[in-house]
Parts: sequence; structure tokens; C-alpha cells
Amino acid sequence: MEKIAVIGGGSWASALVKILSENKSQVHWWMRNENDVQHLINYRHNPRYLSGVTYDLNYVKPSTDLRNVVAVADWVILAVPAAFVQEALSGLEQHALKDKVLISAIKGMIPKQNILITDYLGQQYDVPNSHQLVIAGPCHAEEVAMEKQSYLTIGSYDLPTAERFCELLRNRYVKANPLDDLDGVEYCAVIKNIIALACGIARGLNYGDNFQAVLVSNAMQEIERFLHAAMPIHRDLNGSAYLGDLLVTAYSQFSRNRTFGNMIGHGYTVKSAQIEMNMVAEGYYAVQSIYELNKKLKVDMPITTAVYLILYERIAPAVEFEILKEKLT
Amino acid sequence: MEKIAVIGGGSWASALVKILSENKSQVHWWMRNENDVQHLINYRHNPRYLSGVTYDLNYVKPSTDLRNVVAVADWVILAVPAAFVQEALSGLEQHALKDKVLISAIKGMIPKQNILITDYLGQQYDVPNSHQLVIAGPCHAEEVAMEKQSYLTIGSYDLPTAERFCELLRNRYVKANPLDDLDGVEYCAVIKNIIALACGIARGLNYGDNFQAVLVSNAMQEIERFLHAAMPIHRDLNGSAYLGDLLVTAYSQFSRNRTFGNMIGHGYTVKSAQIEMNMVAEGYYAVQSIYELNKKLKVDMPITTAVYLILYERIAPAVEFEILKEKLT
Repeated sequence: MEKIAVIGGGSWASALVKILSENKSQVHWWMRNENDVQHLINYRHNPRYLSGVTYDLNYVKPSTDLRNVVAVADWVILAVPAAFVQEALSGLEQHALKDKVLISAIKGMIPKQNILITDYLGQQYDVPNSHQLVIAGPCHAEEVAMEKQSYLTIGSYDLPTAERFCELLRNRYVKANPLDDLDGVEYCAVIKNIIALACGIARGLNYGDNFQAVLVSNAMQEIERFLHAAMPIHRDLNGSAYLGDLLVTAYSQFSRNRTFGNMIGHGYTVKSAQIEMNMVAEGYYAVQSIYELNKKLKVDMPITTAVYLILYERIAPAVEFEILKEKLT
Repeated sequence: MEKIAVIGGGSWASALVKILSENKSQVHWWMRNENDVQHLINYRHNPRYLSGVTYDLNYVKPSTDLRNVVAVADWVILAVPAAFVQEALSGLEQHALKDKVLISAIKGMIPKQNILITDYLGQQYDVPNSHQLVIAGPCHAEEVAMEKQSYLTIGSYDLPTAERFCELLRNRYVKANPLDDLDGVEYCAVIKNIIALACGIARGLNYGDNFQAVLVSNAMQEIERFLHAAMPIHRDLNGSAYLGDLLVTAYSQFSRNRTFGNMIGHGYTVKSAQIEMNMVAEGYYAVQSIYELNKKLKVDMPITTAVYLILYERIAPAVEFEILKEKLT
């Protein structure tokens, strides 16, 4: 029986615990909140996310004890918001992740340092590249809960390890494929949230479907340029982990980044949108990281730039999109 | 003042007449139905499509006289369903289109012959390649009527001519760009309707957003393979005329192909779906043409094949999609 730690109690963590535990892996599930752990133990449901899913406690072991959850596992899945990674792991000693396979299910970067999650973990916990994986969609957690057919891509620099992890995920409604482009998949997952935010702003400004199709096409070109500058290997950007992941986010009514963007487009300030949503959209941090990182790479990124200027320089969305629309083709 | 013939009275023709006449080109607008012509002359609205648009009769000349409409024009835009092209033009003599620039706004192929519209016109009316253009989206006619920001791509083998036509289209809410890939743009516009049909079938079968994102990603790979086999030039498939055109169709609730597919997915027969919709979706003919054409090209086209088998070989959609889902990655 494989022993897997899942760090995080959100919807994506909840979906992964469902998949893995139903495949009879032992899942040690860390969440911050003691009440949520007790609810899970008493009622076998996560009270906050995917609350319709029933967990089998023979395979799911909820806990608030991070050290122990990590210590007993061979695989460690990180599924907390990027901005909270450092805080969430702060109780771990430096060697705690040694000899484990780390899997990032996070779609973001370490704020201010502007580095990928896997780079941060590699540096901070001495985890070699070959022991790191990333999970990419396209995959709404809500559709996993409904057992709708979904496809996952496991990015890695060590395909046999990625394939072993794919084996733990595959079931009646989930297909999983390894892909040898960890950084590319991870960057794409970050940038797609910026694009979803841009799509939301466009919608808030009353642009239509014609414009969104052009925005997403240009976004793919922007992603291609960025990935080529950041990590120039051959990759098929029409793959599910790139284009597919962007589509499921950019065209979803459920995307929090899109919803956040929509409020910005309607004239909310960043602060009031965050209060109204009672959460922070990953794209809000992502755009700052990519914008800063791109000061070195100097890639033409009109969409990322527009979103950055709107969120961080308080340029009026309508004004910035008038400029952006001239740059799109 | 440029003189432009527009052949066809549907929504896309109505949108193009709006754009061109508002730019003060003289538009000779042929439609089959004498009552519709009279309604336009009396009330300045097309009674059937985009009926909110008011036309300026100083610039719009509706007529049922095809020969005359063509004779007085320097540009001839074809905007009838592909299946009716031969019938619609049957009154023209072979030399009638000589020395005119022909613009195809049609997203389909000549049924049974399985050739592109531009190839048919070239053969039938001795129109050289350099005098042919195609209009590609992404562009819902309905959003043009609402004057939402839209982008058009004009595919051609003669960029100066394409640029001249772009000039006639550009306005406050329409951007137009020439592109030197007439065949590629035209094939992509045909195949996208097949993909929209597949998306509709998937929805009818209760597949979700995760699956559709994978389906569209795999569709782009399928289009790339097909175009490479049919016309191997370098092209950026992330351009608006390829990916954008696919997205606006595949993700639209308004797409007739998607609606038709949805009914097929729900168990309607082709005949009952056609009766219920009171029209024929372009993708229904397109899939037969591409499937037949591909017998020579022998490209791996799992999505096109699945749609063909469902529509023409009466394979149950649920069965065929079980097979298809195993082929997607």
C-alpha cells in the first residue's frame, strides 16, 4: 500500500484524496483546522470543499500533525495556495522531505522571490529534480467529485517516477500521462491564471466571445514566447497540460481568477474584490511574479503587462484594454 | 466608392453588409427571397437575421437579380451555405467572375466533390488564386451586430489584395489582418465545425468542462496534422484565424454545430435533429468531406472519425465516445 501525504484542505486537495484513496493508497491528509479534521473523522466528509464526497477512513487519515503526516509518507503532495507554502511548511525540518517524492499541485509561484514552487522546494529542502513532480490539468476539482471523465498530466524530469505516480491516479474516470517538461507545465499553470483574470476583466468591461477567442489565442502566443525564453525545449503547446489547462480555466464560470477579474472589470478595487470574494485569486500574485521575472527575460507579454498595470499600478481597466486591444491580432 | 456584391441573406452576410456599408462602400446585396428584399427596402432591416441592424439604403442595394449584382461589383463576397453554392451561382455565366476579387465567407466544402470553395470557384469560373480571398473569424455575426470588438483575418495568396480588402472592413470595432495561408485558413474553418459538433455530442452525453478542454486540445493537434499533410507550410496555429476561430465556435452556446451535436448526443437521429432545428449544420457535410479527403491523406483524425461514424454509420454516440476518450491524451 502506497503511503501518500496530502498537504492542504482545499477543493483540489479534496479531489486528489478522493482519487488516491479510492485506488487504495493510504492517504495521510493534513489540514490546518482541527474542527475540519474532526468533522472528517466523524462524518467522512470535508465540511468546506467537495462536501458531497464520502471518504473511506480505512484509507484516509486526516490530521493536523504535519511532521507526522510527512514522516510516514513516501509521496508528499503539496496543495496549498502558493502564497502560503512557506508558512504551511514552516514546521518541517530541512531533511524532512529527503528521499520522498514531492508532487506540487500548486498553481503559483513563491511571492517576492518569484520562483517556481519546485525550485523553492529544491533549494529549501534539498530535494533533487528527479524527486519532484507537478500535477497539471485540465481539471476542475468539482468535476472529479462528480466523477466526470478527466485527464491529468504529470510533469517531471524523471519519467519512470512520473509514470509510477500516474499509476496511483488512473481509474474509471481519470486518465493520467507523464510528460518530461516540469518547468514548462508549472509556468503554464501559473500564467493561465493571469489569462483567466484577463478574460474576467474583459467580460467585466463588456467585451464579448469574439474578443475572448482572440485574447486566448494571443495568450497562447504569449505563453509560447515566455516558455521559449525561460526553458527552450521542444514542446507541443496544443497538449492538454498547456492549451487544455488554459481553456478549462479561461472559459470556466467557476474560475476564481476569472471571477476576480470580472469584478475588477466592473470597477471594484483589488481590496474590495478580495473582501467580496473572501479569498485571494492565485492570478493576483502570479502576475506580479511573472511581470518581475520578465524584467530579465524581456519577452513581449502584452496581456500579462495589462493585467499587472491594472492590478498594481491602478490603471483603469477600460483604458488599459483600449491599449491592449490594439496589440492583439 | 468600392462596389461590393454580397451573395446570401444569412446572419454572416448581414454582418458583413453592415460593416462594409457603414464604411461607405456600395453593397449590392443578393438574397433569394423577394419578400426579404422588399422588407429591406421598405423598413431597412433584414427580417430574418440580425434584425436589429438598420441599413443605410444609400449604400445598401438589395436585389434578387444575381447577374446584375455581380456584374456591377468589383468584389464578390460569397456567404451562402456550402451545400448551396452551386445552386446559388447556377445563373452565372462562366466568365461572370472574371477580373473580380472573390471573397469566400463560407465555412464548408463542396459536398461529394470534397473540395474547398475557393478550389471549386477557381476551376468553375477561371478565377486565379491571386483573385481569391477567404474571411476567417473568430467572429459571431451577432456580436458584430452589437458592435462588440471583433477581429477578422483575410486569408490569401496575394497579400496586397488582402490588405486592400482589410481596409474596407476596418472600423471602430473591427480589426482585420491579412494572412498568407488561404487554404490553411479555409480548411481550419471547415474542421472547426466538426469539432464544435463533437463538443456538442460530448455535452449531450454529459461529459464536462474537463473533457471538453482535452477534446479541443486534441482537436488542435488533429488540425495541425491535417494541415501539415494537406498544405505543409509554416503557420502559427495559435493565431486568431485557427485557434481563435475554433474557440469561438466550440465554446459558444450559439453555435448551430454545437447545438446539432448536443441533440445527437442526447439520442436524436440526424433526421429528427435536422427537423427540430429546421436547418442543417455545416459540420454535418464537412465531416463527410474531410473524412473522404482523408482517405488519401491518411492523417490520424480520431475526433473527425468518431463524428463521421456517429453521423453516417449510425454508431451510438456513447459507444463511439468510449472509444474516442481512450485515444485522447
